[in-house]
Amino acid sequence: MDVMNFLNEVTSRYPEAISFGPGRPYEGLFEVERIGYYLDAYTRHLSEDLGRTPDEVRTLLFQYGRTNGQIHELVARALHNDEGIETDPESLVVTVGCQEGMFLTLRALFRDPSDVLLVSSPCYVGITGAARLLDIETVHVPEGERGADPEALRRTVAALRAEGKRPRALYVVPDFSNPTGTCLPLPTRHQLLSMAEEEDLLLLEDNPYGFFTRTGTGLPTLKALDRRRRVIYLGSFAKTCFPGARVGYVVADQLVQAADGSRTFLADELSKIKGMVTVNTPALSQAVIGGMLLTHDFRLRAANKPAADFYQQNLAVLLDSLDRLLPAERREAAGISWNAPEGGFFLTLTLPVPADNALLERSAREHGVIWTPMRCFYPDDGGGRSQMRLSLSYLTPEHIAEGARRLAGLLEECCV
Amino acid sequence: MDVMNFLNEVTSRYPEAISFGPGRPYEGLFEVERIGYYLDAYTRHLSEDLGRTPDEVRTLLFQYGRTNGQIHELVARALHNDEGIETDPESLVVTVGCQEGMFLTLRALFRDPSDVLLVSSPCYVGITGAARLLDIETVHVPEGERGADPEALRRTVAALRAEGKRPRALYVVPDFSNPTGTCLPLPTRHQLLSMAEEEDLLLLEDNPYGFFTRTGTGLPTLKALDRRRRVIYLGSFAKTCFPGARVGYVVADQLVQAADGSRTFLADELSKIKGMVTVNTPALSQAVIGGMLLTHDFRLRAANKPAADFYQQNLAVLLDSLDRLLPAERREAAGISWNAPEGGFFLTLTLPVPADNALLERSAREHGVIWTPMRCFYPDDGGGRSQMRLSLSYLTPEHIAEGARRLAGLLEECCV
Repeated sequence: MDVMNFLNEVTSRYPEAISFGPGRPYEGLFEVERIGYYLDAYTRHLSEDLGRTPDEVRTLLFQYGRTNGQIHELVARALHNDEGIETDPESLVVTVGCQEGMFLTLRALFRDPSDVLLVSSPCYVGITGAARLLDIETVHVPEGERGADPEALRRTVAALRAEGKRPRALYVVPDFSNPTGTCLPLPTRHQLLSMAEEEDLLLLEDNPYGFFTRTGTGLPTLKALDRRRRVIYLGSFAKTCFPGARVGYVVADQLVQAADGSRTFLADELSKIKGMVTVNTPALSQAVIGGMLLTHDFRLRAANKPAADFYQQNLAVLLDSLDRLLPAERREAAGISWNAPEGGFFLTLTLPVPADNALLERSAREHGVIWTPMRCFYPDDGGGRSQMRLSLSYLTPEHIAEGARRLAGLLEECCV
Repeated sequence: MDVMNFLNEVTSRYPEAISFGPGRPYEGLFEVERIGYYLDAYTRHLSEDLGRTPDEVRTLLFQYGRTNGQIHELVARALHNDEGIETDPESLVVTVGCQEGMFLTLRALFRDPSDVLLVSSPCYVGITGAARLLDIETVHVPEGERGADPEALRRTVAALRAEGKRPRALYVVPDFSNPTGTCLPLPTRHQLLSMAEEEDLLLLEDNPYGFFTRTGTGLPTLKALDRRRRVIYLGSFAKTCFPGARVGYVVADQLVQAADGSRTFLADELSKIKGMVTVNTPALSQAVIGGMLLTHDFRLRAANKPAADFYQQNLAVLLDSLDRLLPAERREAAGISWNAPEGGFFLTLTLPVPADNALLERSAREHGVIWTPMRCFYPDDGGGRSQMRLSLSYLTPEHIAEGARRLAGLLEECCV
């Protein structure tokens, strides 16, 4: 967390610097005027499609609501269209952002001190932070060039079992992961599913960036391939609709035994926990996201084409600029490299020198460019010490080009 | 929880019954058309009062936001006007309903297994549920006729200390508590504050019902009387604005040591936790509540006059009906009694027979009236076994009168 604080501090001290730091979505595509439109679309749906009376519509918008949410059927339709995920709406919990979804899922699954959460290393800080809050032991498993490594995972599981621990679940972002930008190949997805079945693990699949691909189609999610209910799918509308709504969801279709002996969805367990955390997801937020789903005919992937094009352009500008400024021979000689993701918000740049606070400070002060030290995403004693995460989502193409020029200046100075 | 489930089941099986169960606010005063108006009021405030550019307004509504919230200054102004509570807006965390406020507060304060949360018994289930979720030991301290009993609390604290435990905080609803409807007298409020100082306890003051009084003014909150930062104030807009927004807040102005040795507000600790639970409270919800605060000139007490009048009328109808149907002599002979709160949503009715699931079922089936068994609000081995909670907030005066008639029918049959 200290690295993150330092990053924030540097950002506020050098407001003129171009920042490859924030993983926020681009704002230029948001329109304040549309909020009312989406709200209307949702209330029209309630009255015209579902036959709700005006009093019932009022209750749905203003009153305490169903703990698991009121737009679960709409979300299930979008999952069918966009991801080929078939899900019973009753197995879906609408949450206050994906973060609450992670929190509820961890709280529901991890009850014994011997339960261990596996994460790929490096890893998104939202899941490790939630685990820390719940005193859940987290074990980082190094990932390879192409993301999660099933063999390393299998060895880790065996070692943990030998210690008397119970690896309970693996958190994974198969599509353009935060922070590295890697995308899990299809065979690895199948391997993870097989391993989950063999090792009695659950896979917590987080998928905020799947729509933002160069190819436009992408690979099937783990959940779409899941035949054994091994995958808990953590959904987010932060990047595909907007973050300020704070609406996410969890598909938890695993069958569990309820207190009275009947079988229910794991979603119902999450719901009980949610009742004691936020009671229910705000109706207004659900209504606006519901209105967006209705307006776009439950096809958010298509609706996000302009956003996907924008991010793809940024990615192309960044990769092209870096390649032009630091041609292959020159960067190889210097020990500089970067990956070339097919989509998403992030890429990883590797240096021959530490990408630490001192370099970040110098980068901001002398070159006017900011980035995230990759070690933020490792445990304290972990790796990433000579890597940076570059985020391309929040800048315009012009700023990306200029930022790449500044970054190359830094790299020329300290590495070449 | 089983009692609550049974209550829900009975409610769904007898939809025609009049229910004194739900503690929800009355809906007749909500207007769907006003949502857009409040949103506009808030965005006008951002641009006209605060000089935000259209791009900045868009960012505030659509993007990830400040973890502690964006309407903290507006809420602080309303607290000044309505409660005489002077608070630094930086000590205020805007939460996803009061429930998240409770959850964050408990997580921040309770870190050691020897830490104990004290609650009055009976007690609102939201706080005990959140404590259970965090594996926090909760000790119920029986309250007297007029609410929390400082002497009983002092004895409990001493006994816990003798066991090597650390009583850390007391949760209390001084104004028209849920479930009993009792209101803590002013001298007791002062006693609680003194005791908190002497015994090194924090007071978690929850105040959802304070505006709904017969007299119109009410007593000062613990926080308004707090000179030693002993009170953490848990605020809710669920009853004073509307529940569907899911906006609450915590005033946590206690000074704590930050990781770097500097002194910060406890609010900043809550904020760090909130970042891993919900990231931030939805901007839309904050904007609508902010618009309501602006529209009502930061005086929610005055704005709630119509609601307060409505609840007062309901309370009068309920008390008058019961008194007429079961006159003093008759009910005393039968061992039936009830309290007569000055305000709030609830009252307590005591019977000479168990107010259990069997009686509830019979009440719904044969008399068409539903209520909440008071034992829901006690620990499993606790009291309240011959009491019911009657909620008057969700019904019209006509239904209250008819419900009282039905209830009297039940009581005549089983008690007189």
